[in-house]
Amino acid sequence: MNFHYPNGKRFTTDSLSATPKKIRKAPTQFGKRGMTLEDELNESNQYYLSHGIAVIHKKPTPIQIVKVDYPKRSAAVIKEAYFRQASTTDYNGVYQGYYIDFDAKETKRKTAFPLNNFHEHQIRHMKACLAAKGICFTVIKFVELDQIFLLPATNLFSYWDAQKNGGRKSIPLSYIQENGYLIKYQLNPLIPYLEAVDELIKRYEGEHNAKE
Amino acid sequence: MNFHYPNGKRFTTDSLSATPKKIRKAPTQFGKRGMTLEDELNESNQYYLSHGIAVIHKKPTPIQIVKVDYPKRSAAVIKEAYFRQASTTDYNGVYQGYYIDFDAKETKRKTAFPLNNFHEHQIRHMKACLAAKGICFTVIKFVELDQIFLLPATNLFSYWDAQKNGGRKSIPLSYIQENGYLIKYQLNPLIPYLEAVDELIKRYEGEHNAKE
Repeated sequence: MNFHYPNGKRFTTDSLSATPKKIRKAPTQFGKRGMTLEDELNESNQYYLSHGIAVIHKKPTPIQIVKVDYPKRSAAVIKEAYFRQASTTDYNGVYQGYYIDFDAKETKRKTAFPLNNFHEHQIRHMKACLAAKGICFTVIKFVELDQIFLLPATNLFSYWDAQKNGGRKSIPLSYIQENGYLIKYQLNPLIPYLEAVDELIKRYEGEHNAKE
Repeated sequence: MNFHYPNGKRFTTDSLSATPKKIRKAPTQFGKRGMTLEDELNESNQYYLSHGIAVIHKKPTPIQIVKVDYPKRSAAVIKEAYFRQASTTDYNGVYQGYYIDFDAKETKRKTAFPLNNFHEHQIRHMKACLAAKGICFTVIKFVELDQIFLLPATNLFSYWDAQKNGGRKSIPLSYIQENGYLIKYQLNPLIPYLEAVDELIKRYEGEHNAKE
C-alpha cells in the first residue's frame, strides 16, 4: 500500500505500523524518528490550516536563478541556480489576527543552544517585526534530549546583544527552560506550539497594558 | 557613476537624471517606465521597512530542486530544478500588529480585470487568512491606464465565487473604482498602498464592531 495524501506526502504502511508501537512504549513518544523539526512543524502547520486555526507557512528557500531552459512541450527547467541567504525568518503567518513570525533551529548540544545558529539579518528581521507589533519567537529543538522549546524573541535578543559585547556564545538550557515554553509532542498537531504562543500573547499584552 | 546600494540594486546616473525630467512634466508621473508592479512594490516595501513602518516581503518563488552539485571550494550549484506553483499569495508581513497578505497583478486590459489572473489555491489561501483575521487584498495595476488599485479580498471573492456559478470572468474597472482604493504614485514610497490599508482596516473594524 503506497499512495499519496493531498499534502503530497507519501503514505506508507511503515508509518501506520509505527503508531501502535509508540503507544506501548513509555514514556509516550510522538516525535517520529528521523523527522526533522522542519517536517514536524510543517505537519503541525498543515493541521492548524486544515482545522481553520491558523495560516502559517514555511517560506520557500530563496534561489538565485541564472539559467533556464524552455524545452518544447514541457516545463521550464532551471539549469543553473544558487542558494541565496534568506533575509527573513523561515516561518510566518496569521493566528487570531496576530502576525506570527519565527525561525526553527535544531541543536545536538545538550546543555546550551549555540547562537551561531542565527545570522545577524534574521535577528534584525525579528527586531523589525517585533517593532511592528508582531509575535516573534524561535522554536528550538534539543535533538538529543528530544525536547522542543518556544523561546520569545526578546529573550533571544538579550543573549544575542550580550554576545556582541563579548558575552557568551550560547544560551544555557536552564535559561531556555525558565524563560521559554516547553512544547510537548502530541498526536494532533504533533508540535502544539500555538499553545505556547497563547501564553506569549498574554505576556505581551500584560507588558503592553502595564505601560499604558 | 555606477555603484550598488545596500539593497543590492544598481544605482546609475540614468535613474538620477530621470527625476528632474519628471518634475517638469504634467501630470506628474512617478511610476518609472519599464518597472514592473513587483519592482515598484519591492521598492515601496523597502521604504516601509527602512522607515520602521511595516515589515512586508515578497516570498521567494517556490522551486523544486532535483539535482545539486557541490564543487570543491565553491558554492553549491543547482543543476536541475523546476518552478512549483505557489500555494499562497506572494506578499505578506506585519503592519501595526496587523497581518497583511496580498497578491499583485498586472493587466493590459483597460476596462476590466480578468479573473484568470488568480488560481483557486490563492483564493483559498486568502479566505483562510481572512478567517484568521488577517488583512487580505489584491493590488491590481492597469498598465495601459497607469492606475493602481487596492481591492479588498472580500470584493474579489464576490466575483470569483459568482464566476464559478457561471458569472462573468472579469471584474469591471467601474466596480474596482467603486469598491477598491486608487493608489496614486508618489515619490516615497512609490506606491503608498498602506494608506489604502489604513482605510481597509477601518472598514473591517467598522464591520466587526457592527456585529458585536
